[in-house]
Amino acid sequence: MTKTTLTELQSPIKNELIDFDSFFKAELSSDKKILDYALRFILSQKGKRIRPLLVLLASKLSGTISERSFRGAALVELLHTATLVHDDVVDEAEKRRGFPSLNKIWGNKISVLIGDFLLSKGLMIAVANNDFDFLKTITDTVKRMSEGELLQIYKAKKLDINESVYFKIISNKTASLFSACCEIGALSSTVNSEKIIALKNYGEYLGIAFQIKDDILDFVGKTKVFGKMQGGDIKEKKLTLPLIYALDNCEISKKKAILKKIRKGKNSNIKEIIYFVIQSNGINYSEKTATEYSEKAKACLNIFDDSDAKTSLIKLVNFVIERDK
Amino acid sequence: MTKTTLTELQSPIKNELIDFDSFFKAELSSDKKILDYALRFILSQKGKRIRPLLVLLASKLSGTISERSFRGAALVELLHTATLVHDDVVDEAEKRRGFPSLNKIWGNKISVLIGDFLLSKGLMIAVANNDFDFLKTITDTVKRMSEGELLQIYKAKKLDINESVYFKIISNKTASLFSACCEIGALSSTVNSEKIIALKNYGEYLGIAFQIKDDILDFVGKTKVFGKMQGGDIKEKKLTLPLIYALDNCEISKKKAILKKIRKGKNSNIKEIIYFVIQSNGINYSEKTATEYSEKAKACLNIFDDSDAKTSLIKLVNFVIERDK
Repeated sequence: MTKTTLTELQSPIKNELIDFDSFFKAELSSDKKILDYALRFILSQKGKRIRPLLVLLASKLSGTISERSFRGAALVELLHTATLVHDDVVDEAEKRRGFPSLNKIWGNKISVLIGDFLLSKGLMIAVANNDFDFLKTITDTVKRMSEGELLQIYKAKKLDINESVYFKIISNKTASLFSACCEIGALSSTVNSEKIIALKNYGEYLGIAFQIKDDILDFVGKTKVFGKMQGGDIKEKKLTLPLIYALDNCEISKKKAILKKIRKGKNSNIKEIIYFVIQSNGINYSEKTATEYSEKAKACLNIFDDSDAKTSLIKLVNFVIERDK
Repeated sequence: MTKTTLTELQSPIKNELIDFDSFFKAELSSDKKILDYALRFILSQKGKRIRPLLVLLASKLSGTISERSFRGAALVELLHTATLVHDDVVDEAEKRRGFPSLNKIWGNKISVLIGDFLLSKGLMIAVANNDFDFLKTITDTVKRMSEGELLQIYKAKKLDINESVYFKIISNKTASLFSACCEIGALSSTVNSEKIIALKNYGEYLGIAFQIKDDILDFVGKTKVFGKMQGGDIKEKKLTLPLIYALDNCEISKKKAILKKIRKGKNSNIKEIIYFVIQSNGINYSEKTATEYSEKAKACLNIFDDSDAKTSLIKLVNFVIERDK
């Protein structure tokens, strides 16, 4: 079986994505020289743009893509970019998407301000066009994202986490935005609440599958492909599903020993912990769980007639859990 | 002449301020333990709350204070607090309002997230109650604030600034929020556009006077009272009105020598530069300019009948330019 490609997923809305690109560029220009320069830089290193893709596919599935859909797609991409810029400041990251990070080039102060600017710019596009339904969704999402991240940090300090807390964290910090993308896409082209809720739930399950996969890759992803070092989460004391499962299914003495090693945070322990997780079926279990959520996501689309947009949204689920980066 | 006190300014809306305090506390609680703890901490060290005071006085002057006015006041205070939290991260500040800063206690990551949370919380209060007019004002304000700060940093790098650029910077970075406070206060209790515009302009002029005064205090404020070290702006290569005036009114050779010293950024040069500014009438000129703006602010209130709220807003202008911290 060949792997799903991004181009395949994009194909039903190829032209609309080109139009969105122009729309996004035009919105992201500024008459302030320094700002415009930084914005060009950000635009030049665009990522996979999964989130705008989700908005536009959800919009097409529930009706017709319009400028309102573009505004929704711009809003979520701006919010996502703003959080990446802030993350890089906080993590003192040197690279982003293969380029030097904004904070590396311009320093923290400019980066935090540009993050704030991007967020407010996204909100302004919505406010200026009376897209108040988008605003309800997006402000709730920002709140959920920060709550999820805060809970994760809190639990990392305590090293005390179980599956139910794990799902609460990833649902808030990651799935909330995927869900918002699909909801906003649907809102932009239909008032049918059954369709809106179905797409919102699709996004939530997709986001959970996405994050579980991300957490799996942290253990077994190839650094060169995945772009992050193996065991980064362990180093940050983030206990994710593979490790939670392994710890829940071993002798209590072993659990204590592993937790002690995590607490010490030594680099030399990381390999051993990864080995422990693999041996304890932590990866297999997590793959299985991600697949369960991906099936739940697909099932949400059952109420829609078959179409190329629907096919793409189904394939997008596969893309997310098959990816190696 | 005795100095205006904060209590005096608050007196016409004493009861409403108590009610606002309860309202604000209730809005700032969270069922997430770590978040609630951090929010209590932030609430415990409340500052002068000039911005909510402005909202409520503007609201009273143009009609009746209502829960909508409280929401407006909460929105601006949350935005202001969010920017302070982000500023402290960026400046690696150790203290805020006499207490250890949030970043000092909980680290940068938590602080950036709490800043984002506070901003989204403010927006959510407005969104949940369909205060879309507030949102138009506030998103535009966030954009202006980040643009102003970015322009200031850009100019600090080039050390090339004149009065007109200075006014552009302070109008965007500081006056925008004062103006938004008064506009939101007015919007919360009237639809009379003449009143709304008058209060919006009052806030803009007041904000400019406030920032000029802040910049003066950076040269001549008593560190113990003002809470910041003298010459902090010079160290950060921020050229503010007192220095701009002094540089514009001296021999070109002197100007070059001073700029060279600023560029070097040596602590030992700061005293000399402060002396130069005072000798060149930079402080007198700036005091005069601040007074001019404060008179412009007061004049905006002429369209309103006399009342205790109007008296307070006039005294608030004096309070801002008389203050020594």
